[in-house]
Amino acid sequence: MHTIKELQEKVSELFDNRQYIANPKELYEPIQYSLSRGGKRLRPLLSLISCSLFGGKLEDVYNSAIGLEIFHNFTLLHDDIMDKSPLRRGLPSVYQKWNANTAILSGDTMFVLAYEYVAKTKPEILVDTIHAFNKTAREVCEGQQYDMNFESESRIGVEDYMKMIRLKTAVLIAAALKIGAIAAKASKDNIEKIYDFGILIGLAFQLRDDYLDAFGDQDVFGKPIGNDILTNKKTYLYIKSFELAKGENLDRLKKAFEIENPKKKVKEVLNMYDLLSIKKITQNKIEELYANSLDILNKLEINESDKKEVYSFLQQLIKREV
Amino acid sequence: MHTIKELQEKVSELFDNRQYIANPKELYEPIQYSLSRGGKRLRPLLSLISCSLFGGKLEDVYNSAIGLEIFHNFTLLHDDIMDKSPLRRGLPSVYQKWNANTAILSGDTMFVLAYEYVAKTKPEILVDTIHAFNKTAREVCEGQQYDMNFESESRIGVEDYMKMIRLKTAVLIAAALKIGAIAAKASKDNIEKIYDFGILIGLAFQLRDDYLDAFGDQDVFGKPIGNDILTNKKTYLYIKSFELAKGENLDRLKKAFEIENPKKKVKEVLNMYDLLSIKKITQNKIEELYANSLDILNKLEINESDKKEVYSFLQQLIKREV
Repeated sequence: MHTIKELQEKVSELFDNRQYIANPKELYEPIQYSLSRGGKRLRPLLSLISCSLFGGKLEDVYNSAIGLEIFHNFTLLHDDIMDKSPLRRGLPSVYQKWNANTAILSGDTMFVLAYEYVAKTKPEILVDTIHAFNKTAREVCEGQQYDMNFESESRIGVEDYMKMIRLKTAVLIAAALKIGAIAAKASKDNIEKIYDFGILIGLAFQLRDDYLDAFGDQDVFGKPIGNDILTNKKTYLYIKSFELAKGENLDRLKKAFEIENPKKKVKEVLNMYDLLSIKKITQNKIEELYANSLDILNKLEINESDKKEVYSFLQQLIKREV
Repeated sequence: MHTIKELQEKVSELFDNRQYIANPKELYEPIQYSLSRGGKRLRPLLSLISCSLFGGKLEDVYNSAIGLEIFHNFTLLHDDIMDKSPLRRGLPSVYQKWNANTAILSGDTMFVLAYEYVAKTKPEILVDTIHAFNKTAREVCEGQQYDMNFESESRIGVEDYMKMIRLKTAVLIAAALKIGAIAAKASKDNIEKIYDFGILIGLAFQLRDDYLDAFGDQDVFGKPIGNDILTNKKTYLYIKSFELAKGENLDRLKKAFEIENPKKKVKEVLNMYDLLSIKKITQNKIEELYANSLDILNKLEINESDKKEVYSFLQQLIKREV
């Protein structure tokens, strides 16, 4: 397979200088704005990695990879309206910079654009690709709905949470890998395995995000630390802490999340997380998911040097800072 | 071909009792609500008419026809948020009955559902069907953006308006016919002609809607008369009247649209429309589009009795009440 670095360069080539502008400009400028800001472009990278891993031609997955990234950004546009998020990748969200109507309609148009790219996939792999894409798109919507439901539900269990992030985050990461494998005409068994591998990676990736919000280094994380705490967001850490706290600790935990002063609130919640060993518990859970994903990777019929290449990428993606 | 009545029954069979419910129910209940309310189901009917007209098997177009109807309803969910419309088909809109977030996300899910149905089209016609669907979906978004732009633009010409309704309304009607023809494996020439026919029908259909808002019979129209006038909506009638009014009449027209009392406003605007012959002008425009559509219909390589069947359907659709 290609090195990860080569594939990262390919992804940059796919997106840098790509123009989405057409008329009416009120519709397409937010799309250009949204897709030019970059971000990690993790999903197209995963499609290229998977395609290369199974010996496919990268050209066969380019269009779907672009489609997946546009789809992902479409969900961000709409999520930012629903979550009233003013910022995205350190810049004003489309919802904030323009308005909700613009974010709705430009988002819808991005969704169409995503399908336009996916539909360019060559006919012999089109049906499988589209089915994987449709199933995933639907599940991502379901995940966002569960996430919104959680806001008004008082007790969410860890299982509920894992189900939600599976739908909202992990399935798209898994689908990116699957679509790459489909493009490479991998065996049915390998396609299933790489998908399952992707689910575990996706879950670990989200838990790492939850973890870094409380225990990360702001400069590396790229977002202010403690934001989830300040907004009482039902993360893995939040849910696990309420599951474990009993008696006096439970009272103190509840009160910690009610503190109005931001600095004091973050400090007290982190104290409680410390008391309840939330850091270690989350690390262990991420380790477990990571170990399980490696088990699957090891079972794939690919050569050892390729496995090593993927290992080192996963280190970057999930293990760093944890 | 089948009679229109038979095809209408087929459309009812396709939709009556169709269940869209899944989990989470907060996501799917608004979808079920939206798609169970019926409406004219004009787009799937047109797909079946076109498929039958060109001697295709109806089963080959069922899935796309369902997809088109779901897509149409998805656009209504999002349009109702953007236009702040409390009512849809005489019932609270999803936006009004639930909230904007629900209408956004259930709408997105309907968009996915639409693609799921379209993707079930049999492989040999899948690529052409999806391309027609994608192009249309994008144009409908563009049309909605132009429509929103018009709200804040002071002078819209009739040409701008015709372009907008072409995108917002006519292309989906044309695509419904085109997709039916694709399913029937009609000739390239016939597919193009039925599309062009659909554009003219779609434009006439929208102008008839504009017309009936001012000159229709409320019981037949199904909506309160004068609603476009009360909201200063830039319809064909509005734009044409401002194009024609000069001097004193222009002042009077402007003032008419500024009247606060609803009854007085509708009355005075209708007086002005009368003075400017807007009724006759709109009738003539619809007649012209209708005549042009018949020219195309006559050029299609289909038998005379089938043409008659389509004529009589068009009478129902466009000519009645005008």
